[in-house]
Amino acid sequence: MKHTAEILSVGTEILLGNIVNTDAADIAAALSELGIDTYYHTVVGDNPARLRAAVEIARSRADILITSGGLGPTTDDLTKQTLAAAFGKKLVFHPEEAEKIRARFRDMGREMTENNLRQAELPEGCTVFENSCGTAPGCAFEAEGVRVLMLPGPPVELRAMLRLSAVPYLRALSEERLYSHNIMIFGMGESAVEARLRELMDSLENPTLAPYAKTGEVRLRVTAKAGSTAEAEALMAPVLEKVRAAVGDVIYGLDVESLEAACFPLLKARGLTLCSAESCTGGLIAKRMTDIPGASAVFKGGVVSYWSEVKAGVLGVPQALLDEYGAVSEPVARAMAEGARKLLGTDFALSTTGVAGPDRDERGNEVGTVYVALATPTGTLCRRTSCGKERERVRTVAAHHAFDMLLRWLRDNE
Amino acid sequence: MKHTAEILSVGTEILLGNIVNTDAADIAAALSELGIDTYYHTVVGDNPARLRAAVEIARSRADILITSGGLGPTTDDLTKQTLAAAFGKKLVFHPEEAEKIRARFRDMGREMTENNLRQAELPEGCTVFENSCGTAPGCAFEAEGVRVLMLPGPPVELRAMLRLSAVPYLRALSEERLYSHNIMIFGMGESAVEARLRELMDSLENPTLAPYAKTGEVRLRVTAKAGSTAEAEALMAPVLEKVRAAVGDVIYGLDVESLEAACFPLLKARGLTLCSAESCTGGLIAKRMTDIPGASAVFKGGVVSYWSEVKAGVLGVPQALLDEYGAVSEPVARAMAEGARKLLGTDFALSTTGVAGPDRDERGNEVGTVYVALATPTGTLCRRTSCGKERERVRTVAAHHAFDMLLRWLRDNE
Repeated sequence: MKHTAEILSVGTEILLGNIVNTDAADIAAALSELGIDTYYHTVVGDNPARLRAAVEIARSRADILITSGGLGPTTDDLTKQTLAAAFGKKLVFHPEEAEKIRARFRDMGREMTENNLRQAELPEGCTVFENSCGTAPGCAFEAEGVRVLMLPGPPVELRAMLRLSAVPYLRALSEERLYSHNIMIFGMGESAVEARLRELMDSLENPTLAPYAKTGEVRLRVTAKAGSTAEAEALMAPVLEKVRAAVGDVIYGLDVESLEAACFPLLKARGLTLCSAESCTGGLIAKRMTDIPGASAVFKGGVVSYWSEVKAGVLGVPQALLDEYGAVSEPVARAMAEGARKLLGTDFALSTTGVAGPDRDERGNEVGTVYVALATPTGTLCRRTSCGKERERVRTVAAHHAFDMLLRWLRDNE
Repeated sequence: MKHTAEILSVGTEILLGNIVNTDAADIAAALSELGIDTYYHTVVGDNPARLRAAVEIARSRADILITSGGLGPTTDDLTKQTLAAAFGKKLVFHPEEAEKIRARFRDMGREMTENNLRQAELPEGCTVFENSCGTAPGCAFEAEGVRVLMLPGPPVELRAMLRLSAVPYLRALSEERLYSHNIMIFGMGESAVEARLRELMDSLENPTLAPYAKTGEVRLRVTAKAGSTAEAEALMAPVLEKVRAAVGDVIYGLDVESLEAACFPLLKARGLTLCSAESCTGGLIAKRMTDIPGASAVFKGGVVSYWSEVKAGVLGVPQALLDEYGAVSEPVARAMAEGARKLLGTDFALSTTGVAGPDRDERGNEVGTVYVALATPTGTLCRRTSCGKERERVRTVAAHHAFDMLLRWLRDNE
């Protein structure tokens, strides 16, 4: 039987934008992996009447309802009462769950207030989901042709219960699952990627192919519905091949998080080291490299030379170059990378110099103009780029270009 | 007239949990600031029939509908078509918007595919919202007693359009407004702040006082409902006074974005300069300073000395200190800051050295142990901190400490 799920997030904090709804994303990703269709998410505050109204709409269009939030001990926490009432169930006190709650407070060395025992009241005949990270148990029940799963709101608790209890419960309902690959692209816009692949996308049913834009990047996701990994891979292989044939020149990786994450294992496996010399990116290249756990295996450090005197004094960029060409120029980008490579004693150095904005530089270079250079053991490369008009975007895309240059060099010089 | 808003997020990526719905949180927070009630958010995929169904439900319970997503150039992008049809509006080609899209592609040096011009088709008679960070304009129209606002999906574009166009548009709809101040706190956890202020919070009706946690920081928001700025300020002043009396020692600013944004004008007004010497924060201090437009007035640059040999070779940290105390130590943090201050010729230098994780360092320092130092014209200060256990948090909180030290010095030495 084909199921349709709907996610109901309960909580005034989410409704008012005080916190971002990561719970819905976690539940949706789990449903997607399980191959269960989800057509809507709804967010509603801690208000029983409006929650009830949302439940009535949801049950009219889905046969699996998953709630998050509102299972705690306070008077605001009304999810169980509301859902139980909507499906004609009573709440029943579960003494063994009450004992677990008492034990948890003992373990934390905290006194338990009586209201905490409300968390042990659960719908009659439900499957109890243990909470490995908090006090409020979750549960699942079936009534009137609908399965209702209730999960706690705190993200740490939700994630654990999803993985340990809810996903196994849901898996038992379906036979087929979704499998996917992410094809990562840099150097071509979403609309251009789509223009090259539209016919292919339109012709596909299983697997499917869809593009997603990130700042300056595009991710193409191939998704197959299948009974096993082997079957899914067999379905996806010809599509991957066609995508490579169409846009292979701008694909930088498969199932990899970012350009820097694609560079990292290549450097590490070959014992190569990297440093940075940053002007307009102001530390972003170094920050992104060191976001990677274990980055110290390849990344020695870098210089942020925001002022020209730092480019000259620390990186050794000749003053004559700065005077003649200006800080935002190819000769300076090259000299920065070469200076950093020498100063830090690395195999590679990445440099950026450009105009992040908000205004043009004093030589009239437009906002978004960036020179990116890569110094290597066999010479220095430089790329002139236009990275957009908005400060954050310019900096992000300039750093993308830097890692893209390094990645291409590493692949071309194996 | 009292308005009720509803948020409709359109996008299969959000529906399937590939990305977290930060757009809804941003829109909800803006509505909350404006004092406009919001009772539901709905997420729906790139599916016109289901979007239409969601619109019909939303218009039955709200008179302001705000959509995000689905304004782009691809065939998946159907928000405008669907909303226009639901409210009996035609889409009309806007030549001046088409010209802006063409200009944007020229600026980026990219070829524009024809499908991009679909972004210039907007509902007849609408107010156009300019997209300062991307190609797809947004818009607002009124029809059948409902106001519909359509905003782009990419978070950078959404945030800019929300601030520059949607919030001003919505503000014009209501007479009584919400006015608020944000009291920024670093150095005390949310629950401790709340414990000190709970009685005050519970006693207030207008204005209200509420705490919000950010990574390592707390924001206290005072919000007054009033007919004018003067009236609002008069209502808020005694509350601000009481908050200062209770937690004044950890307040770092009023209505300021971040610790670094609080430092920036103080440095600039006094003509003082700053540099950084970063180990565990790996460029984050430099990156955060240079996130500020105009940062070059005070920030000369910095060194990311991820490897000890860079601490010694570039920053001049004596090898004997590294050998005796290890890289994660107070003497090394001090020497890094002093070395950077000298090398870059600045008034101040901030340094960090610590264990970001995932593992302890080779001397057994726990994950989260960080030494932060500030070199000044009159001597060097150092702070030993525990910044948590999770890599991203350790790095963020370590950078907070660095800016907090600088800010306190600047305020103590006026």
